[in-house]
This record gives sequence, C-alpha cells and structure tokens, in this order.
Amino acid sequence: MRMRKKKWADSWLDEHTDYIFQDPSVNKGKWKELLSCDELHVEIGCGKGDYLINMSQMYADEGWIGIEKDRSAAATAARKALELEGYNTNNNRMVLADAADILDWFDEKEVDMIHLNFSDPWPKKHYHKRRLSSKDFLDKYKIILQDKGKIRMKTDNAQLFEDSLIYFLQNGFEVVEFSVDYRRNIHDEDAITEYESKFMAEGKPIYLICVEKVDMIQ
Amino acid sequence: MRMRKKKWADSWLDEHTDYIFQDPSVNKGKWKELLSCDELHVEIGCGKGDYLINMSQMYADEGWIGIEKDRSAAATAARKALELEGYNTNNNRMVLADAADILDWFDEKEVDMIHLNFSDPWPKKHYHKRRLSSKDFLDKYKIILQDKGKIRMKTDNAQLFEDSLIYFLQNGFEVVEFSVDYRRNIHDEDAITEYESKFMAEGKPIYLICVEKVDMIQ
Repeated sequence: MRMRKKKWADSWLDEHTDYIFQDPSVNKGKWKELLSCDELHVEIGCGKGDYLINMSQMYADEGWIGIEKDRSAAATAARKALELEGYNTNNNRMVLADAADILDWFDEKEVDMIHLNFSDPWPKKHYHKRRLSSKDFLDKYKIILQDKGKIRMKTDNAQLFEDSLIYFLQNGFEVVEFSVDYRRNIHDEDAITEYESKFMAEGKPIYLICVEKVDMIQ
Repeated sequence: MRMRKKKWADSWLDEHTDYIFQDPSVNKGKWKELLSCDELHVEIGCGKGDYLINMSQMYADEGWIGIEKDRSAAATAARKALELEGYNTNNNRMVLADAADILDWFDEKEVDMIHLNFSDPWPKKHYHKRRLSSKDFLDKYKIILQDKGKIRMKTDNAQLFEDSLIYFLQNGFEVVEFSVDYRRNIHDEDAITEYESKFMAEGKPIYLICVEKVDMIQ
C-alpha cells in the first residue's frame, strides 16, 4: 500500500527518533529491556500503524515493534500513536528502515512473534523475492526468532497466501493455525484494521496462517 | 450429499456386479491388470459419479475406481456411466461399500492417487472421525498408496479444508499443490461436476489441496 508523500514527514521523523528509530541497531539485544517485556512482537510492514497501535494497547504486557520502510506511512503511523489521547508508548516503538536489514537490529532468538499483515503480494514472478514471506526473509526470521517462535500472517491475496504456505513448509516452519476465512468467526483477540474491515465489508475472505519455527536439533 | 432412496437401486445393483462391485476384495492386487493401466486413481465418495465418469474418459490411459457407500447414489452413478452413449468402461469400475474397509480391497502400494471431492464435512466435533481425511483414514491410505502416492482433495467447506491441512501435515503427508480459490484460474485438466459448478455460480471459492506421501525411510 503506497501512500502519497507527506511533506511534513522528514522533519517530523527526525524530531521523534526516540519513538521511531531510523537506526534500530542501537537496541540490538536490548529491546525487551527497553520495552519492559518478556515477549517481543515485531510487525514488518506496519503501514499506517493501526494494527500495531491497537495490539500494543490490547496486550500491554507484551512488547510491540512496528517496522515500515515508507517514510510517509511510517511518519503517519508514529504521529498517530504519539498524538492518540491516553496512548501508552512504554511497550512499543517503531522503526523506519528496510526489513532486509533485520539481522542488524535483533539478536539471535530475540523475537517471539513476527506479524505480516496484508503485505505487498508482489504478483509478478520476477519480484517474488521481495515478498516478506519469501525464502530469503524466512532465513533471516529463523535467526532472530526464539525457539518455537512464530510468524503470523494475514492477507486478502489468495496467490500470496498459497505461495506463502509452501514457503513456510519448505523452509523449516510448521503450521499451527490456518484459516481460509478467518473473519467468519469472531476473533476479538486480534485487532481489525481499517484496511482489513474494508475487505470484510466487501465480503472477501481474510486468509490467516500462523507457523512455528521447527526445532532443528531433534 | 444424501439422496432420496431409489426403489430400483437394489435389484439394478445386483444385476451389474461386473461393473459395480459389492465385494471389491476379489480384485485386491489385480486392479491395474483388470483396468489395463499403470496408474490407478481411486475416488472415495464418488456420489452421483460425475467426476469419475468425466475423468475416466479424459484420462483413458489411467485406471479409475469410484467408491460410494450410499446405494442410491452408487446405483445412479453406475447406471449413468453404463447408459452413457459411447462411454468406455475399460478403464473404470465402481465399488458399493464403506471406505472404512478399504484395506480389504487394495494391496499395499496399489493406488497412485486418492481423490476426495466435496466429502461430507461432518461439522460436529463428535463426528470428525468420520471425515474421509481424518487420521484413521489417512493411516489406511498410506498403506495402499504407492511411494510418492498422492491424495487430492477439493471442497467448498472452509472448516473441513482447514482441519484437513492439519491432518495431512500431522500424519506423514507433504503439500504439493494448494489453492484457496482453485477455480479463479482455468483448470481444463480437472473435470467440474454439477455440484461444483453450482458453488462456482454462487461465487463461492473451491478449496484444493494435493498432498504426497512422505517417504518414511530417509
């Protein structure tokens, strides 16, 4: 989801590097301490931040980090959080950077769950490597994920979902939850973003898969 | 899909035991010889027979067996096949019996592919064991399936599909094909039954999964 360039974003982002990091590597190995949590969630491609903002408030004991590489989206997300009445930032931060470099920001096994919500499906075969669930990314996620760490992915894109199941299974992950129409049942435990509710209103199914890192020492 | 009882079915079935077997165990180990084929397909729960009839004619070099335990459905399917102008029965037969006894009818590794099309979803938890993709059935399928033998399942039922993926993965099968909306693309290689086209007309997705038996000696 590309958004229009916000003129205010650059200077705003530079003024708020204590909430939205442009060099997240300074916290490598220290995120749980920073966020005073035992369980660390990382949303890659958090867009305008609705999921991150909602989930971090619903699960105040857990740590939440949102990563977004688009400057305008990242600035919109971070500003929305910081200007939200009563919003508690103790357990959450954002990162403005490209997740391809994720190994520079997290220690081995530092992350408990990675969230991929409505990621860019990159439909053309030539660009499949850019998908956030593709092999190169999974190889990185496996390093930063805790033993039994999870990746939880939601999407409205059938092709991305189908291909991602295969990526996960071929690259050392086991399916623990799976739905081809996640919102046909009520899931109060999982925040619904504006983007997601638009699809639901259109009657389109939301696909969900949650996978767990397979223990390699068996 | 339960159908109304056909009064003519019993006597008709007894007169056509050369095409629709009521004691299929007589052919155990001899199906490929009987059907002059190298590759044997078995559809469990073939209902009114549309898929079996179409596929056996589309793939005349392969052997096709349709299993149905409902007498009225089985009789309807078999009569439809035998009365169809120009229908070639050389490579196909039907079986009137309960697939729970499938080990009595096929030798180890005699079958190349098992087809489950729009099987009864048995939604109540108490009846999940009756699902044709549940563990007890999979244990039997593994015995009669060839090395690298496959199970190919299509359904319109989201819950059955979701649960079946897990059954397959937990019981020694690997996903080789997977779609959450199979008919969004054209698949001329796969016959569309009347039942299936009804769902397609309603805009409902058809779910497909094809899994392969994992080689246990690794």
